[in-house]
Amino acid sequence: MFIRNCWYVAGWSSEIDQSKFLARTILDVPVVLWRGSQGSPTALEDRCCHRGAPLSKGRREGDCVRCMYHGLKFDASGTCVEIPGQERIPPSMHVKAFPVVERSSWIWIWMGDVDKADPALIPDTHWLHDPEWRSLEGYTHYDTNYLLIADNLLDLAHLPYVHPTTLGGSEDYAANLPKIDLVERGIHVTRWAMNTEPPSFVQKVRPFPGKVDRWNIYDFLIPGIFIMDSGMNAAGSGAKDGNRSGAAEFHGCQALTPETENSTHYFFAHPHNFAIDQPEVTASIHQSVVDAFEEDRAMITAQAASLALKGDFRMQAIRADEALGKFRWLVAKMVKDEEAERAGAVAITTDAKPAGRTVPIAVAAQPSGQP
Amino acid sequence: MFIRNCWYVAGWSSEIDQSKFLARTILDVPVVLWRGSQGSPTALEDRCCHRGAPLSKGRREGDCVRCMYHGLKFDASGTCVEIPGQERIPPSMHVKAFPVVERSSWIWIWMGDVDKADPALIPDTHWLHDPEWRSLEGYTHYDTNYLLIADNLLDLAHLPYVHPTTLGGSEDYAANLPKIDLVERGIHVTRWAMNTEPPSFVQKVRPFPGKVDRWNIYDFLIPGIFIMDSGMNAAGSGAKDGNRSGAAEFHGCQALTPETENSTHYFFAHPHNFAIDQPEVTASIHQSVVDAFEEDRAMITAQAASLALKGDFRMQAIRADEALGKFRWLVAKMVKDEEAERAGAVAITTDAKPAGRTVPIAVAAQPSGQP
Amino acid sequence: MFIRNCWYVAGWSSEIDQSKFLARTILDVPVVLWRGSQGSPTALEDRCCHRGAPLSKGRREGDCVRCMYHGLKFDASGTCVEIPGQERIPPSMHVKAFPVVERSSWIWIWMGDVDKADPALIPDTHWLHDPEWRSLEGYTHYDTNYLLIADNLLDLAHLPYVHPTTLGGSEDYAANLPKIDLVERGIHVTRWAMNTEPPSFVQKVRPFPGKVDRWNIYDFLIPGIFIMDSGMNAAGSGAKDGNRSGAAEFHGCQALTPETENSTHYFFAHPHNFAIDQPEVTASIHQSVVDAFEEDRAMITAQAASLALKGDFRMQAIRADEALGKFRWLVAKMVKDEEAERAGAVAITTDAKPAGRTVPIAVAAQPSGQP
Repeated sequence: MFIRNCWYVAGWSSEIDQSKFLARTILDVPVVLWRGSQGSPTALEDRCCHRGAPLSKGRREGDCVRCMYHGLKFDASGTCVEIPGQERIPPSMHVKAFPVVERSSWIWIWMGDVDKADPALIPDTHWLHDPEWRSLEGYTHYDTNYLLIADNLLDLAHLPYVHPTTLGGSEDYAANLPKIDLVERGIHVTRWAMNTEPPSFVQKVRPFPGKVDRWNIYDFLIPGIFIMDSGMNAAGSGAKDGNRSGAAEFHGCQALTPETENSTHYFFAHPHNFAIDQPEVTASIHQSVVDAFEEDRAMITAQAASLALKGDFRMQAIRADEALGKFRWLVAKMVKDEEAERAGAVAITTDAKPAGRTVPIAVAAQPSGQP
Repeated sequence: MFIRNCWYVAGWSSEIDQSKFLARTILDVPVVLWRGSQGSPTALEDRCCHRGAPLSKGRREGDCVRCMYHGLKFDASGTCVEIPGQERIPPSMHVKAFPVVERSSWIWIWMGDVDKADPALIPDTHWLHDPEWRSLEGYTHYDTNYLLIADNLLDLAHLPYVHPTTLGGSEDYAANLPKIDLVERGIHVTRWAMNTEPPSFVQKVRPFPGKVDRWNIYDFLIPGIFIMDSGMNAAGSGAKDGNRSGAAEFHGCQALTPETENSTHYFFAHPHNFAIDQPEVTASIHQSVVDAFEEDRAMITAQAASLALKGDFRMQAIRADEALGKFRWLVAKMVKDEEAERAGAVAITTDAKPAGRTVPIAVAAQPSGQP
Repeated sequence: MFIRNCWYVAGWSSEIDQSKFLARTILDVPVVLWRGSQGSPTALEDRCCHRGAPLSKGRREGDCVRCMYHGLKFDASGTCVEIPGQERIPPSMHVKAFPVVERSSWIWIWMGDVDKADPALIPDTHWLHDPEWRSLEGYTHYDTNYLLIADNLLDLAHLPYVHPTTLGGSEDYAANLPKIDLVERGIHVTRWAMNTEPPSFVQKVRPFPGKVDRWNIYDFLIPGIFIMDSGMNAAGSGAKDGNRSGAAEFHGCQALTPETENSTHYFFAHPHNFAIDQPEVTASIHQSVVDAFEEDRAMITAQAASLALKGDFRMQAIRADEALGKFRWLVAKMVKDEEAERAGAVAITTDAKPAGRTVPIAVAAQPSGQP
């Protein structure tokens, strides 16, 4: 089960334009995204309300889309505005429209109750397009549940083991546990590794002659948004006391968006604030991250395959699991709260209906775009 | 669930001969077909009654087939006539034989109660081999339930949207609803589009200089047989009043045969009665139809994938759905009637058996061939 | 369901060494095998007890393995000996260790209750490494349940039908039923075909000028171990009376190890005791067997696909099924006995736990190796 009342990243701004559709399944729902003539993004359920044909295989007509199966036409709010061979259009003929917000190079989408879609809940990821920072846009696809990837991001002790030649340095890095704090809708992790080997991805572009003091300080927020202040400075240079002079600094932004129960969209970038006029530095950092994320994907996909097998296997927690344990608890709680709320709503709205029936939650069709 | 007591197309006559087997799964049952020494077709369940090995991997021995796993031999009625190492053959040792009828280039098969297999129920498709008509034999395979394809054939309003460069003309074609009549075991559809653009597939072989009056008049019969009188004549030439002089006429024959719940065999041909001495005209028409059916397949496969995803999606009917709505109602009714009849039969025949057990319906092994 | 309390072949001795891991799923449980510094084999569950990551993607450190996800380290008994960032290691932190025995080129593994793992239950397969015999090591993988392959091995009447150009001779071979005896944990089959055509695989390396008397005498033991004295001698030479002078003799050893309910590991070799100084003879025999086993695999895979389809199909036994019927009865009985025993054990050990819960059976972690 997924949390529905939260903002998910639906894609990079660069993935949609006015001339084509982006079809992407999110939380098991097919979604079609496009950019309207005024430039704002639109997201509709990618199923014509008539027979379920994908609107993403349809035709743009101004700010409308025509389903190219039987010719029904919908405006950007999802309202059906034309049915071939039929004058009257019943008010029920509409496809679901999802609130979308474009911010800092990402398109955010709200898959839950429309009236709860508060843009103030969108985390700050301005580093993705801040002129003082540079990064390239990353995307990868996982054939696993998103929580296994969240687990990975919530315990960076895996860096020296999974990423010895990319993001990770020496194995002493894993010896110090991070400090974990609960924050609004997520977890805050503070991790310092003092006097440790610098990782390869930094040495390639901004070499340190000796050991470094390294920090990874990040929020991991519902539903799976990772925003990290990280970097390193020469060991003993006082980075932990705030001296970032001469440091290599990064501000990674990553987002997990469940596609289905068993597959995940993964959007990422790793902005740096040094050598920002050297595209080869940005490209090198990006490639290191891409390589490392393939290492993660290999491990997590193998882990998922292992867990899918039978037997009486049960995971056992270690102290380093504090962050992932708290995050999974938070996810479970929010899912449960939403279910309870939905059950309550159903109890109220389904007065005359038979018990036990699946009742679709009514979602008022509203113009999407930046609420 | 499928209707069992009806004739399905099992294949083209040309697909079977005396030297090889055709293995084809129909209604989730593996079937092996071949042509006996007298030329008549035979269909047996493609599972040796011993251990279930496919007889289609067996060996022809006269009009018999020998299973090449352990050597059991069966005659064309499915009766076991030899068991290596065993003198006595119990009467229960037989594989199911299905009534088959070869007619107008198609092999029809009856998957239900043998005693109800009335060849008079087979629809007339003589255009497939009438010397006044010409066509090529078509087959395609769908990875979807057959009813989604039936839906498609029951609303030709999709022609200009799905097939703008093959079978469809201008979009005004979709504006007029067809007349729908219930007929014995099916639906009769009468559709006229007056003063409309001729479709590309006709213009390629029999061009009209201007607009046309176009008709599509067809039966869509249980279980999924489409037989259509279609064509067009110059707009205003009086085609609707019966004047077919100078018209381009076709008599399409198509048949849907479920392979499994999620896959379908699709047999088709599109006979024309003009330029019948020009094979390149026949080939051109056939290729247009093949191309168009690939367009359908792409749309319907995408639709099926979309419907397979979750969410609270429900189809909503439009007026143009009258024919498909009536046909789906008819299918559901016939399936339900058959289930009720089977339940009644079971109640009578399973007197001494434990309740709740699945009881195979006894089917007398009968010689197949043209009943 | 599988029998758990028995020895399965986990692999060829040659498949494991001190420098790498062998990952193999057995009875739906992922297992990692390696050879310790003293040469003895070790088998652990291939799931780190922390988050389930495969230890086979880990790193050897002496006789230990370090999980390369988060760095936990385990010794050969499965006991966790290091957790990065954590001093105290709870005694529950261990991965399951499986008893393993290396004998006659095969590694045997015990997937059930450790205290029942009696090496005396391992069948004798010394022909695999006896200096008087020669063979090559074979492995193939099936995408079917292992019992369909056991069926195949329990009725060699299939030889002339499935293997007419490899292992099988003339079809009269199938006419004589074998003698079937129940033995401790299995079936003993004695099959003689007198005055029959010699099979191709023998004619290629040890041709007989005329017909032969041929024997196949074998044990088929729980869980799926096939050990066969087979061969042939000139017809009338008195082989059945014990005269093996001038005979071509073989001692095939084969083992079926379920990977999952629907896939199987198949280990095999076909030792011969003639021309043992001619590697080309050994290679030719091996290649004939490999070719023949591909013939079996094609048939059995087709059979499994056929059985997976619906309909009211039921297998019907013939007299030749006596051996497979008895073996399947034995398997079913042992599975049922184990379930009953487990249920009894659970009743005793789960006093305070809620009814109906799945309770993992405690398995004491023990040093593996040759008990």
